[in-house]
Amino acid sequence: MNNELSSLRVQDIGEQGLLERLQRFCPPEIIGDDAAVLSTEPGQSLVVTTDVLVDGVHFSELTTSGEDAGWRAVAANLSDIAAMGATPLGITVGLGLPGEVTVSWVEQLYQGMTQCLQKYNTSIVGGDIVRSPTTTIAISAFGQVDPSGVIRRNQAKVGDAIVVTGVHGASAAGLQLLLHPDFGENLSQSDRTILIQAHQRPKPRLDVLPILWEILDSHTPFVAGMDSSDGLADAVVQICRASGVGAVIERTQIPLPTQFDHWLTQEQALEYALYGGEDFELVLCLPKEQAYTFVQQLGEGAAIVGKITDGSTVILHDQTKEYPDQVLNLDRGFQHFHR
Amino acid sequence: MNNELSSLRVQDIGEQGLLERLQRFCPPEIIGDDAAVLSTEPGQSLVVTTDVLVDGVHFSELTTSGEDAGWRAVAANLSDIAAMGATPLGITVGLGLPGEVTVSWVEQLYQGMTQCLQKYNTSIVGGDIVRSPTTTIAISAFGQVDPSGVIRRNQAKVGDAIVVTGVHGASAAGLQLLLHPDFGENLSQSDRTILIQAHQRPKPRLDVLPILWEILDSHTPFVAGMDSSDGLADAVVQICRASGVGAVIERTQIPLPTQFDHWLTQEQALEYALYGGEDFELVLCLPKEQAYTFVQQLGEGAAIVGKITDGSTVILHDQTKEYPDQVLNLDRGFQHFHR
Repeated sequence: MNNELSSLRVQDIGEQGLLERLQRFCPPEIIGDDAAVLSTEPGQSLVVTTDVLVDGVHFSELTTSGEDAGWRAVAANLSDIAAMGATPLGITVGLGLPGEVTVSWVEQLYQGMTQCLQKYNTSIVGGDIVRSPTTTIAISAFGQVDPSGVIRRNQAKVGDAIVVTGVHGASAAGLQLLLHPDFGENLSQSDRTILIQAHQRPKPRLDVLPILWEILDSHTPFVAGMDSSDGLADAVVQICRASGVGAVIERTQIPLPTQFDHWLTQEQALEYALYGGEDFELVLCLPKEQAYTFVQQLGEGAAIVGKITDGSTVILHDQTKEYPDQVLNLDRGFQHFHR
Repeated sequence: MNNELSSLRVQDIGEQGLLERLQRFCPPEIIGDDAAVLSTEPGQSLVVTTDVLVDGVHFSELTTSGEDAGWRAVAANLSDIAAMGATPLGITVGLGLPGEVTVSWVEQLYQGMTQCLQKYNTSIVGGDIVRSPTTTIAISAFGQVDPSGVIRRNQAKVGDAIVVTGVHGASAAGLQLLLHPDFGENLSQSDRTILIQAHQRPKPRLDVLPILWEILDSHTPFVAGMDSSDGLADAVVQICRASGVGAVIERTQIPLPTQFDHWLTQEQALEYALYGGEDFELVLCLPKEQAYTFVQQLGEGAAIVGKITDGSTVILHDQTKEYPDQVLNLDRGFQHFHR
């Protein structure tokens, strides 16, 4: 990109000019009405979620490329759709922009969003662009779900196995590597890249749903679950709290990135896995037998990490007895307003 | 409200504390999952729209009460739903808040949103609250519509009558009265109140849809239209541009608030009506005969203001011949980014 193009700012071309440039990222049929019209399949319910991302809080316009910011914003929303057991129908994008933001950053943002959306066969169906002192990205995502297949947090049952669909901690480690390059000096370049990619290009686990539906039969009760966007500990505690149950998590069963092996201490690794967040895996509670089949079919990274118990405590247990039992709660890892 | 309560700030109670307080504005069944699940009726399509409102650009947290900001934000989104011919299913609210904002302002915002939503039998179904240097309200609204009854901009046909569902200019006049109290010194207090209310509490015209469906029969082609949120001139020009047609608007047929009568000059009144915006009426194009019945049944304020012509020009015509013909275009009234 030449300098002239990349230094063009939003205030130079105005809202209308920007809209015209961004229309190529949207399906042509959606442009020009007060709202978008989407079809849902007969018998399906609508699933709706929304996220707001703010420059300086959730990303930095100076240090996050537009593409990465766009991909991550979309991935987080599609992960919420996956966490409900739903298939995406589209997203809307509300954008607040200072006039000084470069047009090229905004185009990259849409590029990143579109890349992620295309991977999951969906698209931008509407939006709004307004002037704001702070770059703000508000995304709403829509999906459809068979009402009998909705995954909710409050349906975990005593005896259920707790499944995670992949490794945890990679995203948090990737972020640390970006913030403190020295931190990973004994990591190979490829290991470093893998962890940074996990942070910059997280993958919503929409792909696990067809596998899950295949395994569940009409006799299987509802599956409980959510995504691990705020960390694995948060997900398990939230599910238990909503379902009125407890859980035991086996410390040694938590799947970690192989890149952690000769790099982090056990404590550091567990810290990232439990509290790091943004791995965007699914944490699902289902009967043991189906859980085994499910994990086998998912392959690498997927694991049964524990089971649902009666009571209301979530315990981190070590079967090697090296560490004493620990109680997990929301005090850590939860995103406070004043953070 | 006592001073202690009203001086409590968001940073004093954190995101979690704020969420707990705001949950009373949401139906209990929607709280606690990654996304909301809504049912659409069989055979209906989904309609989706989104708006972003920014403190200092679209409202002022210092001079706009939370209730008015909330009502207006919801009304604008429900107006987009109405403009598509759809019935609302719910909204999501994404909120960016500086820590210094008072909890009471945020609660009033939700109060105002809820008041407007309840009037139209709908509710908040999801949301996100994040820290931001700038108070930002991102609303997405969802509705359902019979696919054969979608109102689009691109369906106006030569010969159609152009109907407006109510008076234009009241909202812009109300805003001027708020900004410059002297401006309305020869207005009665009640006239002043009516205009200010039109600005602070606009009403999305969801109520006109059942009347419209009643009048249209299976032989009537699609109705074209949109709302007049950016002014009457903008609406007519947008419809004509999308439909590849022109229009003649009769200057004397544009319904004005009676409060303008002994207050504004004809030019001022027309300026507000054509370019003021935010009246949130519907501008609809339909065959003459049905248009007459429709306007009659709507009653006060509704009017046929012109007709669709071939060509591509939108002309403001004066049947009294006092004023020469004028061409209307998007250059005025359109909201530029650098405004």
